[in-house]
Amino acid sequence: MKERLSVQKAVLNAYEYAKGWMGQGILPDFIPELTNVDPDRLAVSVTDRNGNIYSAGNTEDRFTMQSISKTIALALALEDNGLDEVLTYVDIEPCGDRFNSIYRLELMQKRPSNPFLNAGAIAVCSCIKGSDVEEKYARLRVLAGKLLGNPDIAYSRAVCRCEIETGHRNRALASLLVDNGVCNGDPEEHLELYYRGCALLVTTQELSRFGATLACNGVDPCTGEELLPRSICELIRALMAGCGLYDRTGFFNMSVGIPAKSGSSGAIMGSSKENAGIAVFSPRLDSKGNSVCGMRAMEQLSQALDLRSL
Amino acid sequence: MKERLSVQKAVLNAYEYAKGWMGQGILPDFIPELTNVDPDRLAVSVTDRNGNIYSAGNTEDRFTMQSISKTIALALALEDNGLDEVLTYVDIEPCGDRFNSIYRLELMQKRPSNPFLNAGAIAVCSCIKGSDVEEKYARLRVLAGKLLGNPDIAYSRAVCRCEIETGHRNRALASLLVDNGVCNGDPEEHLELYYRGCALLVTTQELSRFGATLACNGVDPCTGEELLPRSICELIRALMAGCGLYDRTGFFNMSVGIPAKSGSSGAIMGSSKENAGIAVFSPRLDSKGNSVCGMRAMEQLSQALDLRSL
Amino acid sequence: MKERLSVQKAVLNAYEYAKGWMGQGILPDFIPELTNVDPDRLAVSVTDRNGNIYSAGNTEDRFTMQSISKTIALALALEDNGLDEVLTYVDIEPCGDRFNSIYRLELMQKRPSNPFLNAGAIAVCSCIKGSDVEEKYARLRVLAGKLLGNPDIAYSRAVCRCEIETGHRNRALASLLVDNGVCNGDPEEHLELYYRGCALLVTTQELSRFGATLACNGVDPCTGEELLPRSICELIRALMAGCGLYDRTGFFNMSVGIPAKSGSSGAIMGSSKENAGIAVFSPRLDSKGNSVCGMRAMEQLSQALDLRSL
Amino acid sequence: MKERLSVQKAVLNAYEYAKGWMGQGILPDFIPELTNVDPDRLAVSVTDRNGNIYSAGNTEDRFTMQSISKTIALALALEDNGLDEVLTYVDIEPCGDRFNSIYRLELMQKRPSNPFLNAGAIAVCSCIKGSDVEEKYARLRVLAGKLLGNPDIAYSRAVCRCEIETGHRNRALASLLVDNGVCNGDPEEHLELYYRGCALLVTTQELSRFGATLACNGVDPCTGEELLPRSICELIRALMAGCGLYDRTGFFNMSVGIPAKSGSSGAIMGSSKENAGIAVFSPRLDSKGNSVCGMRAMEQLSQALDLRSL
Repeated sequence: MKERLSVQKAVLNAYEYAKGWMGQGILPDFIPELTNVDPDRLAVSVTDRNGNIYSAGNTEDRFTMQSISKTIALALALEDNGLDEVLTYVDIEPCGDRFNSIYRLELMQKRPSNPFLNAGAIAVCSCIKGSDVEEKYARLRVLAGKLLGNPDIAYSRAVCRCEIETGHRNRALASLLVDNGVCNGDPEEHLELYYRGCALLVTTQELSRFGATLACNGVDPCTGEELLPRSICELIRALMAGCGLYDRTGFFNMSVGIPAKSGSSGAIMGSSKENAGIAVFSPRLDSKGNSVCGMRAMEQLSQALDLRSL
Repeated sequence: MKERLSVQKAVLNAYEYAKGWMGQGILPDFIPELTNVDPDRLAVSVTDRNGNIYSAGNTEDRFTMQSISKTIALALALEDNGLDEVLTYVDIEPCGDRFNSIYRLELMQKRPSNPFLNAGAIAVCSCIKGSDVEEKYARLRVLAGKLLGNPDIAYSRAVCRCEIETGHRNRALASLLVDNGVCNGDPEEHLELYYRGCALLVTTQELSRFGATLACNGVDPCTGEELLPRSICELIRALMAGCGLYDRTGFFNMSVGIPAKSGSSGAIMGSSKENAGIAVFSPRLDSKGNSVCGMRAMEQLSQALDLRSL
Repeated sequence: MKERLSVQKAVLNAYEYAKGWMGQGILPDFIPELTNVDPDRLAVSVTDRNGNIYSAGNTEDRFTMQSISKTIALALALEDNGLDEVLTYVDIEPCGDRFNSIYRLELMQKRPSNPFLNAGAIAVCSCIKGSDVEEKYARLRVLAGKLLGNPDIAYSRAVCRCEIETGHRNRALASLLVDNGVCNGDPEEHLELYYRGCALLVTTQELSRFGATLACNGVDPCTGEELLPRSICELIRALMAGCGLYDRTGFFNMSVGIPAKSGSSGAIMGSSKENAGIAVFSPRLDSKGNSVCGMRAMEQLSQALDLRSL
Repeated sequence: MKERLSVQKAVLNAYEYAKGWMGQGILPDFIPELTNVDPDRLAVSVTDRNGNIYSAGNTEDRFTMQSISKTIALALALEDNGLDEVLTYVDIEPCGDRFNSIYRLELMQKRPSNPFLNAGAIAVCSCIKGSDVEEKYARLRVLAGKLLGNPDIAYSRAVCRCEIETGHRNRALASLLVDNGVCNGDPEEHLELYYRGCALLVTTQELSRFGATLACNGVDPCTGEELLPRSICELIRALMAGCGLYDRTGFFNMSVGIPAKSGSSGAIMGSSKENAGIAVFSPRLDSKGNSVCGMRAMEQLSQALDLRSL
């Protein structure tokens, strides 16, 4: 990575470059509440190995984490149960299917292919410890607060409620997981926890810090505190490299080359081998569910700051 | 990467460590000729950014490249046609299916998901330029010779013939690709080229050099010669990170963290972010078709030499 | 069909013949409440075109209709909406999948293949008219009472409750149908109606009368009353011929040759071209979910009374 | 069935009625040679239990049997091997997939679901006895000649050659069957036999006689000769009822109600419970591959002559 001044310049450049694609893509129609945003927003942040944070654009915007929260749920499930136990709920292999696909749970194997599919994340949520959904969520929130550097982190009740009401497909996935014997307990409770995680409100600055912590094997570069064990960070980065951008991961690996996770709110978070974290936010999505402007900003930053891991 | 002495020591250590798993796994039954080998072989090689090559074990052994040759066929197809044209033959997305799976070509999309599936590699071979299979193979052989540093490289006629005779599944894949309109021409010719590539005879030293060249964005660290454009190397590394070890890629990314490609002869070749290439060879395979001892040697080397990219 | 005496003899013979397989097969494990029966029961009934009913065995036994109720739900949905409208909820084509299969709803088409799959029956229930589940059920019960000649027909609350509690797979199907836009309204309500229909308590005498009414194009041979229009009977018989015995329909068509519908309680009801209805009951099921002894009794009756339609 | 005069009138009526749909549908594009016909042809024939043959339209036309030949190949395979042996090559269950579908051979079971799928018919051809394809074909031709009442029956070399040259999808099916261990021997030989059977040239008069023979449990109503055992006829009729009209069998069962088999040349042959055979021919096909005018003629005949089996 470059000097501080040149990093700030690269972030601004990436922001300007990505703005050129503003207007392309569409808001997701599968979560109605996500259409209640100003689609013309764009924010870019980088946190380097020394904990410096560089930003451009609408960095004050708070947006829901959506699928990026699957990384935190996984981290908590791993801390609670260990890898071997978590692997009985979910495999860790990429698969080329859409994020909400169901057929493989009938035709191929009972557990989901990986924790970044909706089915996989629901299975992960089902093994987070806690006496009820409130306690489980409280524990998830504490970990999220630490990893994002925001102890006051909260979830959007409007988005969460909307997802519960319209989430028939996720209900199908959760029910099939119970029928498959992968999950125990009440599917509705697993879904509630899953949706609260997805609805956690964050900024690109917070996300880029989390990305840097993952890149630094669990040590928060802003505080030096060890927040996660190395092995969990290695697994999360491995999964991001294999299936972090839904069924556009291969293309992203080629054009950006940084393990990353996207969310349907239009956010993408990456963890570079150079110990940096990157986060972008822009709501309009491509046909695979990834932020159009965000992909462009990541591409530009990867080149300009030589952040490629692959 | 460490000093030369310590690298050589790490290679020896990895060799010794991996030998502990000798006897586990089985020879592949789907290519009868591959069972005519001594299963108790193990070779480990590393080529560093300066072109130094370190080895341990049966490094004089020549074995067929099998699926590792898919990287070279892809490189040639990209040089011949450019990325956009190649993408009409094959997508570049990971998918969790077995290497010889066919259902997706009927149910999901007409072109294969990626060039490392058998179907994808056959589609790639079908767009390599040449007036007939001899000319196409001659061109493939020249590129392979350069990338492996062995201009005298040749293919095993016995293995190639065996694969042609018993390869009913690949014939099904090739025929379906023609029916899908993805490939033109004669499926038998595409298969012949594909099998000759798979039967190219190499050593771990040669493979590790090729891995290092991919890691160095196409510049052979042994000669400084530019053998491939950067963009092709970035795509190959991206694909190795997403689907290089069949449906055990996610596990490999976690435990080793280096973009790599395995072959059913028991070889694995990796390209580390640290500009090093690694190659291992040991014939017994796990249930997903990857060398058992090879996986262990890679794991050990990745840790000892800090070669992790992810 | 033969004289009355010889019909009664044939029924007794079939009963005796089928008893020879008593002990083979197993009780279904997917509906726990269905294991609370005496598995050594066997009842056989035939209703001829003149409304004569012949029986042998445990004909006083009441058992739940299970999947046989799908024919009555379909009849009501057709009366309520007409064929064209019902076809927007469900297709009428055989498919070789298990009764509770889900993949086709994601990979092939949004509506279920036919009304005898669980998904298809749930879709059918969702278009039965009524302001709430009580009214819908009341209407279904009236029609069932007529067709079975038992106005006091009732459902087993124990079985219904058990199916609601353990029916995660059906919940997955119902949720996916809503997500697919095939069903509207509350999946839980459709499931409740579906389960009540499945839990309707009947005897083989009643079922054989229903079978005869279907064979007689809707005219009850016991009363001469027209209970269903011809077109609905033709569709139900067509569906029974194509997919009445789950994924053993082809074998049944060969060995018995009578359009029929089986249920997981161990009942089978057939409608012969000879205007006769047949019903058997014996709880132990083969691997496809059909009554082992019931299949044998049907086979014997079809031959002895020359009832083959196909 | 009615008197002779009224049968002839019904055939004429059905012909006139069906002509009203002339021009609808399209010629199949998957067999180029089949587009070299006059699409405006229509022929209708009925053979009754007494061997009387009634016809209307272009009854002198010879056309290829296509999929209808699958019934004869099956009969020969059953005579050669018996049912139990044939069942190791192919199951006898309906499935809702297209006639040339392949996925089920990978995901569900190694043998095809039924002998009327292309894969199933190829598997059936592979177990017909004979030292080479010429001998096998000679035996198939003899049986076809008997069943169709035309000892001089021959196949169209032009259509057969065309199918061999363009039949990449069938080659994929045959190759996968060999890989699955279902078929032995050379896939090309099985395909050659399969295509010759499909290319057998027949008229509707011949086909209706064959249909009547199947309806009469193997006794040719024109000669009284027993051509096939009853059990084989029962199986063929059972299969026609379950999957005779591709993935429109359910609809056909409802609207026509006669076990039947269609072919992509535009022919349909039916076997009614009333011991009559029906055959129609008109080249334009609906989206599922069945003759548009043929379906209408069958529907009309079934009603007018009360031929419904179901």
